[in-house]
Amino acid sequence: MSAIETAEITTLDEDTGALMTRLGQAARAAGSALGPASTEAKNAALHAAAAEIRARSGDILEANAADMTAARESNLSGAKLDRLALDDARIEGIAKGLEDVAGLPDPVGDVMAYWTRPNGLRISRVRVPLGVIGIIYESRPNVTADAGALSLKSGNAAILRGGSESHYSSRAIHECLRLGLLAADLPEAVIQLVPTSDRVAVGELLRLHEYVDIIVPRGGRSLIERVFEDSRIPVIAHLDGLCHVYVHGDADLTMARDIVLNAKMRRTGICGAAETLLVDKSVAETHLPPIIGDLIDAGCEVRGDTATQSLDGRVTAAREEDWTTEYLDAILSVRVVDDLDAAIQHIETYGSHHTESIVTDDTEAAERFLNEVDSAILLHNASTQFADGGEFGMGAEIGISTGRLHARGPVGVEQLTTFKYVVHGSGQVRP
Amino acid sequence: MSAIETAEITTLDEDTGALMTRLGQAARAAGSALGPASTEAKNAALHAAAAEIRARSGDILEANAADMTAARESNLSGAKLDRLALDDARIEGIAKGLEDVAGLPDPVGDVMAYWTRPNGLRISRVRVPLGVIGIIYESRPNVTADAGALSLKSGNAAILRGGSESHYSSRAIHECLRLGLLAADLPEAVIQLVPTSDRVAVGELLRLHEYVDIIVPRGGRSLIERVFEDSRIPVIAHLDGLCHVYVHGDADLTMARDIVLNAKMRRTGICGAAETLLVDKSVAETHLPPIIGDLIDAGCEVRGDTATQSLDGRVTAAREEDWTTEYLDAILSVRVVDDLDAAIQHIETYGSHHTESIVTDDTEAAERFLNEVDSAILLHNASTQFADGGEFGMGAEIGISTGRLHARGPVGVEQLTTFKYVVHGSGQVRP
Repeated sequence: MSAIETAEITTLDEDTGALMTRLGQAARAAGSALGPASTEAKNAALHAAAAEIRARSGDILEANAADMTAARESNLSGAKLDRLALDDARIEGIAKGLEDVAGLPDPVGDVMAYWTRPNGLRISRVRVPLGVIGIIYESRPNVTADAGALSLKSGNAAILRGGSESHYSSRAIHECLRLGLLAADLPEAVIQLVPTSDRVAVGELLRLHEYVDIIVPRGGRSLIERVFEDSRIPVIAHLDGLCHVYVHGDADLTMARDIVLNAKMRRTGICGAAETLLVDKSVAETHLPPIIGDLIDAGCEVRGDTATQSLDGRVTAAREEDWTTEYLDAILSVRVVDDLDAAIQHIETYGSHHTESIVTDDTEAAERFLNEVDSAILLHNASTQFADGGEFGMGAEIGISTGRLHARGPVGVEQLTTFKYVVHGSGQVRP
Repeated sequence: MSAIETAEITTLDEDTGALMTRLGQAARAAGSALGPASTEAKNAALHAAAAEIRARSGDILEANAADMTAARESNLSGAKLDRLALDDARIEGIAKGLEDVAGLPDPVGDVMAYWTRPNGLRISRVRVPLGVIGIIYESRPNVTADAGALSLKSGNAAILRGGSESHYSSRAIHECLRLGLLAADLPEAVIQLVPTSDRVAVGELLRLHEYVDIIVPRGGRSLIERVFEDSRIPVIAHLDGLCHVYVHGDADLTMARDIVLNAKMRRTGICGAAETLLVDKSVAETHLPPIIGDLIDAGCEVRGDTATQSLDGRVTAAREEDWTTEYLDAILSVRVVDDLDAAIQHIETYGSHHTESIVTDDTEAAERFLNEVDSAILLHNASTQFADGGEFGMGAEIGISTGRLHARGPVGVEQLTTFKYVVHGSGQVRP
């Protein structure tokens, strides 16, 4: 019962503001100490934490059972219960995830650029940690491990604020991270979990700009919007993923069918899932009917414009709001467009600048699309579901940023760093 | 009288909120159109604008005379009057500055990284403009040209909000930029100047997050703080430049004298000027007296700790607040420290993480300093006054960022960009 007991005995006798300031100060100090820490020490902490996760799986499952009971009592939805639930396989996944992060290259200390000035000054731009990352998430307890591990690997201290539903589970997982840090002789405040489910703590965290360098919210739209609204600290987050597939007039039919079906239906709930299909009118009659057939066969609802409806009686009418709706479900809106320009225009008007794919054998059309559409990820002849840090070869990701600053697209350990300039001279003074 | 007349006839018949939204929408549209614009078109606009600046120098001087009259009537300080004043040489400097930006490499389209995945996907990270930049500045009318030019070169649309003192001068300069854009067949809304000196406009600009991607304030501390406090848009700005020179026990005396004198006295009002000198106690008796002598001979006031005072009777007592004061003046605080660790500790405690220099012949000590001090720029055996985009070879800069995100240190055209991922496939779908 250790995890649950720990939670219950931590009765807070300080107010939440004072608590958060204390966490912030501890994180800042721990971050400074961690910054120059060796790759070996960080990896040792991750491996030790993975071992603790496995050794304490009983405690974690027990803590999770307590969360699940409370969640059922407060009538949490089935989807949320599923996100919250842990079992042996998921716990092994958490341990494996920590080891995977240990296996990633360490970004800290990378020389990103190096040049020499005419006066002999030798300038290098060197990757360093951001400092302290505040991570606010909802019911998935595994985020505690994932986010903590990515912060640690990138040399940052983390303040984790999990959802109240996963309070006990997150505490049990956090305890393993804490033991991992101690085993590697790193400060335990490198990864702190906010020890209260008081919602005021989130607001306080968002105002800790003296101690926290960046906020990463992970969760539903209302959480992200609240964080953007209230934060005094820069936010890296995923807002909308209204992704498009555009079947150009020179698209190979088989390839178009494969890509559309995969982009929509492989997993409908991820941000890289396609939500709108655009098809050139020159190939609407040949390409759209089989594509629609595939989708409907796979259980997808298709909502189309008049031209699309005329090709298949099962297509329902798309309304204006369909072009701006991220369904995250087995629904696709379909529109027949005049040409490449009309497709680009549609995407720029209704899209969310996340991920778009063009299917075509015309290299010139592809280049125009890739060049002119202003989205984080643009693909030619590939599924939008590749919008993922792992698929990009960046290793684990903390999310996909829809912002334009600092990190755009997948946010892995490299994106959780900044840099400094190191200048070697031989006595130079400025004239 | 054209510049002044233009200003006077623009009586606003819409409220400031509506005006700013209109400017934001126009900037967003112009930015989208500008994004894919050729380097040639952008450079042509810059050259044409430079020609207009020279051709209309009479108008600009007349507009500036109107600003100067109003400024004297409202008793602006001498320093502010000097920043506001234009003459033939400064106007030529503005024209030359535009041509210099035209000569910089175009960052847009740069392939920053390129790799192939095991499934054959070819991924590249390509530099693209940020979008729309809001620039808020004070009395220097030349910022109108500098900031507009850097935004244009980096493919961004700019909304410029100059100080009310430079209203007429900025309008006259902006008119030249507008004509330059038209001459190159680029949308004139690529560089817009807020046409009202209503202070409400700043607040409105800071809330235009739908249309403006980044805010760059340039000016004094109170402006920057207000912008950080009120902005709903990410801010890149320079806050404090409390730079240190540390003379290590193995410093060459001649080099130390040269570097300290230059770091403090070359120009005292720039952010890279040294404000605090730290000297190892092992060389305090040999090195400090000549260094203090140089400074006092050059007209610098020296405030020191007890050890420093004991070495030269002209040194006054430094108080605790001296270690956190950015004088931007001919004043230096001096402290004798035990060793490298104590120097690092002092800088981390009191510094602003801007620029620090170590003077030493001990490579190992230098590496520790460069590695462990967490500042944007760290120098070994060189003056802190090299903290400058031009000196770094980055060309003109819009400022030096003291933030850690996106841009740290000098902010040139490259730092005014973001990137997108372009992925080439051959029909890949995600398993």
